[in-house]
Amino acid sequence: MLMSATEFRESLRTLRPRVFVNGDRVASVADDPRLAPGIAAIGVAYDFALREEHRQLMTARQGTSGRIVNRMLHIDETSTDLLYKPEAVRLICRESGCAMRYLSHDGLNAIFQATRRIDANHGTDFHQRLVNYLHQVQDRDLTVGIAMTDAKGDRSLRPGKQANPDVYVHVTKRTRKGIVIRGTKAIVTAAPYVHELLVMPCRTMTAQDKAFAVACAVPLDAKGVTVIARPAGRPGEAAAKFSAKYGQSTGVVHFDDVLVPWDRVFLDGQVEEGGFMTTSYATHHRHSCIGARAGFGDLLIGAGALMIEANGLDPAKHGHIRDAMVELIKIVEGFFACGVAASVYGAKDPAGSIMPDAVFANIGKLLLATQIYDMHRLANYVSGGLVVALPGPDEDHNPETAASLAAVLAGRPDIPASSRLEVARLMEDLTASYSGGWMSLISLHGGGSPEAMKREIWRNYPVGEKRELVERLLDRGVLSEGQRVSKQPGRCCATGCEVPELPAQRVEDAAE
Amino acid sequence: MLMSATEFRESLRTLRPRVFVNGDRVASVADDPRLAPGIAAIGVAYDFALREEHRQLMTARQGTSGRIVNRMLHIDETSTDLLYKPEAVRLICRESGCAMRYLSHDGLNAIFQATRRIDANHGTDFHQRLVNYLHQVQDRDLTVGIAMTDAKGDRSLRPGKQANPDVYVHVTKRTRKGIVIRGTKAIVTAAPYVHELLVMPCRTMTAQDKAFAVACAVPLDAKGVTVIARPAGRPGEAAAKFSAKYGQSTGVVHFDDVLVPWDRVFLDGQVEEGGFMTTSYATHHRHSCIGARAGFGDLLIGAGALMIEANGLDPAKHGHIRDAMVELIKIVEGFFACGVAASVYGAKDPAGSIMPDAVFANIGKLLLATQIYDMHRLANYVSGGLVVALPGPDEDHNPETAASLAAVLAGRPDIPASSRLEVARLMEDLTASYSGGWMSLISLHGGGSPEAMKREIWRNYPVGEKRELVERLLDRGVLSEGQRVSKQPGRCCATGCEVPELPAQRVEDAAE
Amino acid sequence: MLMSATEFRESLRTLRPRVFVNGDRVASVADDPRLAPGIAAIGVAYDFALREEHRQLMTARQGTSGRIVNRMLHIDETSTDLLYKPEAVRLICRESGCAMRYLSHDGLNAIFQATRRIDANHGTDFHQRLVNYLHQVQDRDLTVGIAMTDAKGDRSLRPGKQANPDVYVHVTKRTRKGIVIRGTKAIVTAAPYVHELLVMPCRTMTAQDKAFAVACAVPLDAKGVTVIARPAGRPGEAAAKFSAKYGQSTGVVHFDDVLVPWDRVFLDGQVEEGGFMTTSYATHHRHSCIGARAGFGDLLIGAGALMIEANGLDPAKHGHIRDAMVELIKIVEGFFACGVAASVYGAKDPAGSIMPDAVFANIGKLLLATQIYDMHRLANYVSGGLVVALPGPDEDHNPETAASLAAVLAGRPDIPASSRLEVARLMEDLTASYSGGWMSLISLHGGGSPEAMKREIWRNYPVGEKRELVERLLDRGVLSEGQRVSKQPGRCCATGCEVPELPAQRVEDAAE
Amino acid sequence: MLMSATEFRESLRTLRPRVFVNGDRVASVADDPRLAPGIAAIGVAYDFALREEHRQLMTARQGTSGRIVNRMLHIDETSTDLLYKPEAVRLICRESGCAMRYLSHDGLNAIFQATRRIDANHGTDFHQRLVNYLHQVQDRDLTVGIAMTDAKGDRSLRPGKQANPDVYVHVTKRTRKGIVIRGTKAIVTAAPYVHELLVMPCRTMTAQDKAFAVACAVPLDAKGVTVIARPAGRPGEAAAKFSAKYGQSTGVVHFDDVLVPWDRVFLDGQVEEGGFMTTSYATHHRHSCIGARAGFGDLLIGAGALMIEANGLDPAKHGHIRDAMVELIKIVEGFFACGVAASVYGAKDPAGSIMPDAVFANIGKLLLATQIYDMHRLANYVSGGLVVALPGPDEDHNPETAASLAAVLAGRPDIPASSRLEVARLMEDLTASYSGGWMSLISLHGGGSPEAMKREIWRNYPVGEKRELVERLLDRGVLSEGQRVSKQPGRCCATGCEVPELPAQRVEDAAE
Repeated sequence: MLMSATEFRESLRTLRPRVFVNGDRVASVADDPRLAPGIAAIGVAYDFALREEHRQLMTARQGTSGRIVNRMLHIDETSTDLLYKPEAVRLICRESGCAMRYLSHDGLNAIFQATRRIDANHGTDFHQRLVNYLHQVQDRDLTVGIAMTDAKGDRSLRPGKQANPDVYVHVTKRTRKGIVIRGTKAIVTAAPYVHELLVMPCRTMTAQDKAFAVACAVPLDAKGVTVIARPAGRPGEAAAKFSAKYGQSTGVVHFDDVLVPWDRVFLDGQVEEGGFMTTSYATHHRHSCIGARAGFGDLLIGAGALMIEANGLDPAKHGHIRDAMVELIKIVEGFFACGVAASVYGAKDPAGSIMPDAVFANIGKLLLATQIYDMHRLANYVSGGLVVALPGPDEDHNPETAASLAAVLAGRPDIPASSRLEVARLMEDLTASYSGGWMSLISLHGGGSPEAMKREIWRNYPVGEKRELVERLLDRGVLSEGQRVSKQPGRCCATGCEVPELPAQRVEDAAE
Repeated sequence: MLMSATEFRESLRTLRPRVFVNGDRVASVADDPRLAPGIAAIGVAYDFALREEHRQLMTARQGTSGRIVNRMLHIDETSTDLLYKPEAVRLICRESGCAMRYLSHDGLNAIFQATRRIDANHGTDFHQRLVNYLHQVQDRDLTVGIAMTDAKGDRSLRPGKQANPDVYVHVTKRTRKGIVIRGTKAIVTAAPYVHELLVMPCRTMTAQDKAFAVACAVPLDAKGVTVIARPAGRPGEAAAKFSAKYGQSTGVVHFDDVLVPWDRVFLDGQVEEGGFMTTSYATHHRHSCIGARAGFGDLLIGAGALMIEANGLDPAKHGHIRDAMVELIKIVEGFFACGVAASVYGAKDPAGSIMPDAVFANIGKLLLATQIYDMHRLANYVSGGLVVALPGPDEDHNPETAASLAAVLAGRPDIPASSRLEVARLMEDLTASYSGGWMSLISLHGGGSPEAMKREIWRNYPVGEKRELVERLLDRGVLSEGQRVSKQPGRCCATGCEVPELPAQRVEDAAE
Repeated sequence: MLMSATEFRESLRTLRPRVFVNGDRVASVADDPRLAPGIAAIGVAYDFALREEHRQLMTARQGTSGRIVNRMLHIDETSTDLLYKPEAVRLICRESGCAMRYLSHDGLNAIFQATRRIDANHGTDFHQRLVNYLHQVQDRDLTVGIAMTDAKGDRSLRPGKQANPDVYVHVTKRTRKGIVIRGTKAIVTAAPYVHELLVMPCRTMTAQDKAFAVACAVPLDAKGVTVIARPAGRPGEAAAKFSAKYGQSTGVVHFDDVLVPWDRVFLDGQVEEGGFMTTSYATHHRHSCIGARAGFGDLLIGAGALMIEANGLDPAKHGHIRDAMVELIKIVEGFFACGVAASVYGAKDPAGSIMPDAVFANIGKLLLATQIYDMHRLANYVSGGLVVALPGPDEDHNPETAASLAAVLAGRPDIPASSRLEVARLMEDLTASYSGGWMSLISLHGGGSPEAMKREIWRNYPVGEKRELVERLLDRGVLSEGQRVSKQPGRCCATGCEVPELPAQRVEDAAE
Repeated sequence: MLMSATEFRESLRTLRPRVFVNGDRVASVADDPRLAPGIAAIGVAYDFALREEHRQLMTARQGTSGRIVNRMLHIDETSTDLLYKPEAVRLICRESGCAMRYLSHDGLNAIFQATRRIDANHGTDFHQRLVNYLHQVQDRDLTVGIAMTDAKGDRSLRPGKQANPDVYVHVTKRTRKGIVIRGTKAIVTAAPYVHELLVMPCRTMTAQDKAFAVACAVPLDAKGVTVIARPAGRPGEAAAKFSAKYGQSTGVVHFDDVLVPWDRVFLDGQVEEGGFMTTSYATHHRHSCIGARAGFGDLLIGAGALMIEANGLDPAKHGHIRDAMVELIKIVEGFFACGVAASVYGAKDPAGSIMPDAVFANIGKLLLATQIYDMHRLANYVSGGLVVALPGPDEDHNPETAASLAAVLAGRPDIPASSRLEVARLMEDLTASYSGGWMSLISLHGGGSPEAMKREIWRNYPVGEKRELVERLLDRGVLSEGQRVSKQPGRCCATGCEVPELPAQRVEDAAE
């Protein structure tokens, strides 16, 4: 069953979560105007899956059940899946700014892989529990939020050493019915308007941190859950051409002795497995972020083009304007290309699923994390200075000023001042407002800060193989023919990943 | 007479300007809370001049009158003046974000130079008028805004060719009493709360643009002047730790057949002189911007250091955090150094004043214009991800959540969560809010867009001298001793400016 | 018939070209030590195709003949071909620095596409001639050089307006036997040691340039051909750890009334088609360059790792060293990813072949063109300062100094000084020698200068589609569901290229 | 007595040093063609001091003696001295590529400061010894090389822990006559053709490293000194338009039980003082490097301008070419500005001398160290692709090719091909040759690697002062007037240095 955006919003009424926004208890999430832009943004990921023209990108056949599901809930099985995922994310984020629902995909895929591995190492049965849960989520077409980043407290101490243990979510009791968890997750995207939260660990653990190695699924309105969130976007602001319509809320989530039934527990004390689950999530998620921010890039490129036009400039004639647009395109497509490469060189998992190549996924995320600021700079550059002195929207209806402003603020004679002001306000909204700043920050720190990506790149890159290449070239002077052999037959030179399965596929295509 | 901030605010009551903010007519500029942060920011430039410890930087002796004046109104006479100006601007902008009053300095200095030149070329008497006006402004310690950037209309047509001539300010009539001007200036910083506006041309003109070559001084409440402005900063917002206190308003200013008496007219139809006035202003102003943004940089550096501390991190141990702080410092001091160099190599003007070196001033402004985005990135980087999920200030007093948030959101045990939240909100205010975005945009486009600076650098740089150097080296093989002579004795190799006189100048200043 | 490197070298003896190097006539190309590194580098592309472990990457089945050919001579038919090409180029360039032979591929593919188009537009029969020629080249396993960049003369004049017409290659006569060409191609890579030259136009033409719109194949020893070349690499230099073995020669080629038989002519006066041929070549070639420079990047990464080790440093402990290595990896894999994406989104040509996506191919080349200097910087950074004072290799055998140098120049106790010096010399050779400089320059300007890539990106990017996206979002306020439809169903959002054919292929894979 | 370049060369005959180049013992340094470019480059610093037009920059009055000396040997006393030093260095380096003699200045100034401090802390008399030595060096107008960078051996161990103690220079004996030193300095610029070497420590020391804390002056031909050096530049190479004339040699220097008389010893076991001496040298030297590389930048700017002209392009019309030139200028003048600022904010030393501001000096060096690669890139960019296929100079006189090459390789009709080739060879020599690579490497690592500069910036920057500024702004809400006081009266806000004294200083200088 695939829901529409409207059905998604309605479905939120079935839950009664404890949510605070700006100090107020939210009576009904589905009806609070401060959350509406967030619900609308997630809605795009629902509606697009119902559109015939987006069916291929937005839906997929789930291998374990044979059913057609929203791609945001699908377990990737082929490199085509890996390619279509960021394409689908880009499609919905260019419409909504950030559709958030790919978080569900990333969490479910990570736990799918991790539970298989835990079971293999510990003789547990987490994987089947996850598959059962997955099918429920898919069948009900739910949106699942990710509660990963703990409050962390004193960063110089491990979880088990904190004065206040509640700065990390942890298990306080195990009963016949399930586990009881408490603690705080500090940065939970879309927290107020998801159906469920996937609680996951955010770091590697040691034996002393046993209680902190926990993953499980919790309904948003489970007893003991409190969400303290910010409004989504800039609801109700007339100048917010985009973010009054679509936005994201992020929240702090407290778990105050929440009971989680055993069939919703996916990690419980296997400290050595937490790191893999976190890393696997990070790899899927950074891959998704690439698609998301490319979609935001599409908005900036389009808005920049409109602004240039409204200013009466022509990129064909004004080299410095064209240059800035090309630079913006170079950044956006440059990091998106890393997402494509991460798909092509995806790594098969013993669980039967596939994971994006970690090197390319991390490079792509690292590029977008730091270059989002350049994207804003370039979009601002091509827009000119109008935004700085832009009269507020209330001025548009001021009888004493509206006419005179309209007369002088147009750029090109065939584009009215009101159109120019509108796109200038959009540009301000996207780049020079609370929403624009939030987009920069979430791009920089979301899914791990740049240092984390650098470490992952270093950890995964086949430096040894390159060193051996050079040693071989150095040791032997002019090499005889017999020595000119790469030491890793069957592995592509780029990243050491296995390409060979690709051609067999393609050969058949060509044979058609 | 040097006013205090309080006296400045009171002085605004003597004017009755026609000002609109967000569609409303402002009853009293001095009392409108939406403009208060702007008035407070300018106030800093007043108060600091009264402080003994800032006397040397914040005041100067005006050579034409012998009187002590606020440095923001002073005509620079020595390279020490040129050095103290950006230092003074930095001092007040690190306190206020952007004190705006340096605009008065930049405009007065430009017209001081330009009128002398016009008189020399045209036998006019503009310079003496300007000196008289200058002394009035200094004696009354006024703040003068700069109305330069015209609305411009169709950018592919010159002023005289526009369908609607009002997109540029121009002279419509000359009477015995003075000139009558009309048209629109589109981006006027601090417009609602200055005493006077200096109307200046924003581009070079041709003979057909005679009516548009006009410079003059207009009281803000002159008949026919309308200001349509944005609020200054984020007045009244609890989360705006900085910009609720200090901010800038920018406005559109209509001149609807405004009469300007002859003694306030400084350019009237001398089309070939408009370009020099504009360029001279640009050079002074870009030099000032360097100091202003370095002051903003000081705020980011300080806020970054506090945030790192509150997160419990130590730059001495965490190399990537230290690296980002050093990068931030490198940017800020790197462009400030260009301001210093522009002062050291200042160029004496026939009017008796001195102008910053154009190459260094433009490079410094170009560096800050593009790197302001990197400054935000680096400040965000060292701050970590907390800002993304920062609960709003209303949450601080919510009895249902305040205690639990306080318990888990602290980083270091000796720094309470409230302190960490406060500095996180400051960081958001400075970098990821409407104010932060405005700062980026004004840095990028204020005082001319990057392309304008590049053209000025190219126009002023002694490329020919470098080409001759290389030609000489090439033409002669190993040069004999007699040939190893630079062709420009007595000129420094950096920019062709005269250094040798420097010490002598300094002696005389001090000897006075 | 696939030749070995040895057979390739022998095959050069069958030609008697007129070649000058450093002012001397070369008696035998195959035996001149100044050209040996170039011949050896091309040899790698031959030998690797004979190795079982590289068969999949290095060979391909030519569709038009069904025969297995070296991939460097193959016409790409599938996106797998497009992916394997840069992989194969990277494989041979990481061994040889730059194997050059991909030029053959790029030229043949471009003319394959262009001749089909010319025939369709002009009723000519060029395509069949090219196919016949292609099969000969493949069957004899030849290496074909590309003679494209004309001398150009006065850059402000078109070809037909030059005072000396010989600054562009042009047709001077048409006879029964063929065309007669004359003029100069100024930058021809590998010119002295290829079997044949493909003459191609380097720019768009107008009707007046008819004689200059010419493409044809010329044996290197055709009557009237003169090659004036530089030595390949640094032959015979003891310090040249790499470039004494492998290198590239580049030459100027004069065509002095050379007769070209009709069956080797592929463009003759169809001025409007020259631009497509040039652009198609550029797209294939920029795609190849990505693979080539990634291979060079592999050498730098490996050499950097060895140098770090020899200096006794550990990237795990020294964050700034690890950071520089990650930055180097980010650059190399970042532009390689663009090559992968250009393959995935390849565009089918009516000729039955496939072309890399122009946007991604140009972005990748643009990234490598400018970042090659950063690659050198980073490799130098991690190497430390030893290279600066590196004693020459003759010092190694100086009895008065060798022992004392060996005693003190080691870094880590278990790595002898001689090993450290050897890798330091390699680093110098790769980055701080004539060879290193050549690599930078050819990366920057080879295959067109950055400005050319920027124009291609702008020309090919679907900016209009993004503008429409934003217009749609702006015009309608909150969109009703029915309006949320992308206007380009069936096209991926990234670049407008057709993805849909991919899944059909992949689905079958998965069905296996 | 100021020597000329010729006298300098002759003076080298009075020494009989043990020097090896490329495995050969050098019979006469003054006559060995492999060292001639180095001697010629230093000669520029001699000749220019004799030229009337350079007198002010190139000479100075030594305060301790009252005598006029070459500025490269002068102890800086005023900020004017600090400004004139990088100006003078730029002047001689734009002529010679790198005049090297500023090393003498940097070492003498550092030891001048450090000995005063050692004496104050330890009751020694090193300072007077240094002053005596300084006067001798000045009176004889010598060139003194700096032997600082030890071979270092295992980088994970301190000097006193090395298996082979000779990887650091150390004292092995103290006799009545003086100390005996042995060990190896690994990177000594200009080693073969200086008169004397100043041995200085390259790092901080601990109590266990007592023998390694040594500074002293050693004549190059002292018994036991061996220099193993590389040729200076590219002597004898016809294509080396610049570096056949001017170049630098760098060498390894062994000290094999060299006796140093007591009056030439300036540090002997005061381990806690070594760090200050090293840091002081680094600050002076980084300040000098800024001037040196700005001079090299002048050569690139001039060569780029010539190359653009020869190619027939006009920066006024070709925006991308102008843009690249402006970018090159921005880099060069951007880091030079840091040198100027370091001079303006120089710090007075108790020894009576003055030191450049450490923050600005380190930022300037850091900027040039990393941007030298960008300078090469930009110079290559504006030059076009000709350099890649540039025929060797031997081709110029080949009767079979010279005429045809000349006919087609010209760009603009009024500039002969030979001129275009000449400037292309110069560009290759400066940027894409062994010399160009050496310039990059020495810029990156000379005077300490980037990480060292970053640490110095962090160590010296008044971060605490900025933090207090922000704390003050945060703690108090809207500040009352009385609280708006900077905590550091009398100190400029930029770096905490004292500006106010500047004018006074200048007065006194001039008054002398």
